[in-house]
Amino acid sequence: MRTKRIFEHAPEVDAIVLMNATEPQVDMSFFYVTGLTSGLFERCAAIVYPHGVEIVVSSLEEESARKGECEVSVFADKKERDSILREKLKGLNSIGINADEMTYTSYLTLQKITDAEIVDVSQAIRNARLVKDAEEIQRTRKACHIISRVADEIPNLVTESMTELELAAEVVYSMQKKGASGPSFPTLVCFGKNASEPHHSSNDTPLQRGDFILVDMGASYNCYVSDITRTYIFGEADEKQIDMYETVLKSQEIGLDAMKDGVDGKNVYMKVKKFLDGKYRGRFIHGLGHSIGLSVHDGEGMGNESETVLKEGMILTVEPGLYIPGYGGVRIEDDVLITKTGVDILTDAKKELQII
Amino acid sequence: MRTKRIFEHAPEVDAIVLMNATEPQVDMSFFYVTGLTSGLFERCAAIVYPHGVEIVVSSLEEESARKGECEVSVFADKKERDSILREKLKGLNSIGINADEMTYTSYLTLQKITDAEIVDVSQAIRNARLVKDAEEIQRTRKACHIISRVADEIPNLVTESMTELELAAEVVYSMQKKGASGPSFPTLVCFGKNASEPHHSSNDTPLQRGDFILVDMGASYNCYVSDITRTYIFGEADEKQIDMYETVLKSQEIGLDAMKDGVDGKNVYMKVKKFLDGKYRGRFIHGLGHSIGLSVHDGEGMGNESETVLKEGMILTVEPGLYIPGYGGVRIEDDVLITKTGVDILTDAKKELQII
Repeated sequence: MRTKRIFEHAPEVDAIVLMNATEPQVDMSFFYVTGLTSGLFERCAAIVYPHGVEIVVSSLEEESARKGECEVSVFADKKERDSILREKLKGLNSIGINADEMTYTSYLTLQKITDAEIVDVSQAIRNARLVKDAEEIQRTRKACHIISRVADEIPNLVTESMTELELAAEVVYSMQKKGASGPSFPTLVCFGKNASEPHHSSNDTPLQRGDFILVDMGASYNCYVSDITRTYIFGEADEKQIDMYETVLKSQEIGLDAMKDGVDGKNVYMKVKKFLDGKYRGRFIHGLGHSIGLSVHDGEGMGNESETVLKEGMILTVEPGLYIPGYGGVRIEDDVLITKTGVDILTDAKKELQII
Repeated sequence: MRTKRIFEHAPEVDAIVLMNATEPQVDMSFFYVTGLTSGLFERCAAIVYPHGVEIVVSSLEEESARKGECEVSVFADKKERDSILREKLKGLNSIGINADEMTYTSYLTLQKITDAEIVDVSQAIRNARLVKDAEEIQRTRKACHIISRVADEIPNLVTESMTELELAAEVVYSMQKKGASGPSFPTLVCFGKNASEPHHSSNDTPLQRGDFILVDMGASYNCYVSDITRTYIFGEADEKQIDMYETVLKSQEIGLDAMKDGVDGKNVYMKVKKFLDGKYRGRFIHGLGHSIGLSVHDGEGMGNESETVLKEGMILTVEPGLYIPGYGGVRIEDDVLITKTGVDILTDAKKELQII
């Protein structure tokens, strides 16, 4: 049970209060503890106890809320919300909050509502969310399956002179037709030298012969996400492009081979970084991967600052890349489930270099 | 100039520091003050002065950051970010923050970095963002134009037995083909009784004769959003459905007629609420509208708790609805620009009842 798992990491508090502000400042942990998959729940709150969850929702969300199994209280306005919360929190000595996903304004509101000691338990929530349960794995697996089939289709979707935005449209259409509730983030299509910008936003750039085609995309399925990148080359490839691709592919293998339960995420990153720096010094400019789940960046990851020890049941991206401003870039990204002995690769789209 | 406008509302601070956490906990004001349209900027910060903006970004975002006109500093890790910020904030007496879009964790980080007094200026930022400048209006207008053409296409996209998710796929494809960078929020397609849940998530429900078809959708264009709802009826309509539709349409007219520079948003809401309650008591369960801009819920709105006075240059949704659990619902939503004398309706999709 998810709430029990959170409290194993936060035994010092009587209850945890999650408070949503206005979208996008919504705490995805609200969906984690309630299991709800429909509704937006702005300004709503969840009171989490070891044995269960009560939610306090606006009338707008009442029907969505009642689909779950939590006790539901409904408020008409903020004043009523605060008085419901005040009543419910009475007598508690110590309340946990998720400071990483709670706005400072919400914190100040909570402070006015309760005299209890307020303790940041975001690490406990993050730890619980990092290790997925069977339902979470099943949903993520489906999101990964959908996006892998989209990736395999891309060579057939590409035509000369099409724009990045046009290819992004085809990609999103394809994932939704395959059952995704939508993209889990705006699809990044990068043609040519735009591929050197890891977070490039797709624009009107037309596809030309010899271009890199880097597509970073994800699907949402029942609130859980996938996140995959494939890089192709259009028409013809020069030696440097091919070498960059093969180097990134090899580096990903090094990473995947190093991953299993008990391994330090930072060590996996360092191995890949060392290999890439040996061939293209300074061109790998981000972490190796991050946890996915209810969010695309769902907690911790594998990078220079990482303190994550990989555990069975974690789901992480593995996404080495090389970026040369003015020239282009290559990234290959898969989503993997950590097991006792290694990894289960959830995104099984073709990975060999495709010149299309 | 945007920064100048913010400081008109917050003359008491020397600078304002915006700090992003991990997506979705990103402050859209970062994009407002920098004018950047590409990049994600997690863990990045902006230091806003009356005369300009400096940004402190991760190496991952450097290329995106340099496309703008701000002074850019680059950090490799959090420690370096904090030391850059510490250096830059030295000597300031008073620093403003956007508490509504800053996590409590970021607040605690800032507190450690500076000895300056920290003042919440979220109201000043919200006030500045509420009144759009020419570029913001142009982008929003385009986002509204795109989504209006999609709405007009929906009667041709609908087929018997299709699922909500399938129609959502067609809607998103259509907007992206028309130039949207993506949906501004997950498209809500609600068939039949699902239309009674204002924030229903599209699912596998198949379309049947006599169903309401409620589609709430928005397009993003250069970071600015639109948000529109149209309700159709499939095959044949009964009298109650028609009456609900005509009632909502009439109520929207009442709202639109009441809106202009200087009017209290709450009063507009009350007029519409009174009319709807006169015919369907208790079935209008949310606010009348909200500001849109860089976010879909971009600041304030027109509702029971609203203190917004409408001002020339604001862009708001106007979205009355009626919801009858177990039966269905109707919502009609448009985006309007407030003018001196009334409103300029930016979403011009057909609004008469369509039985398709």
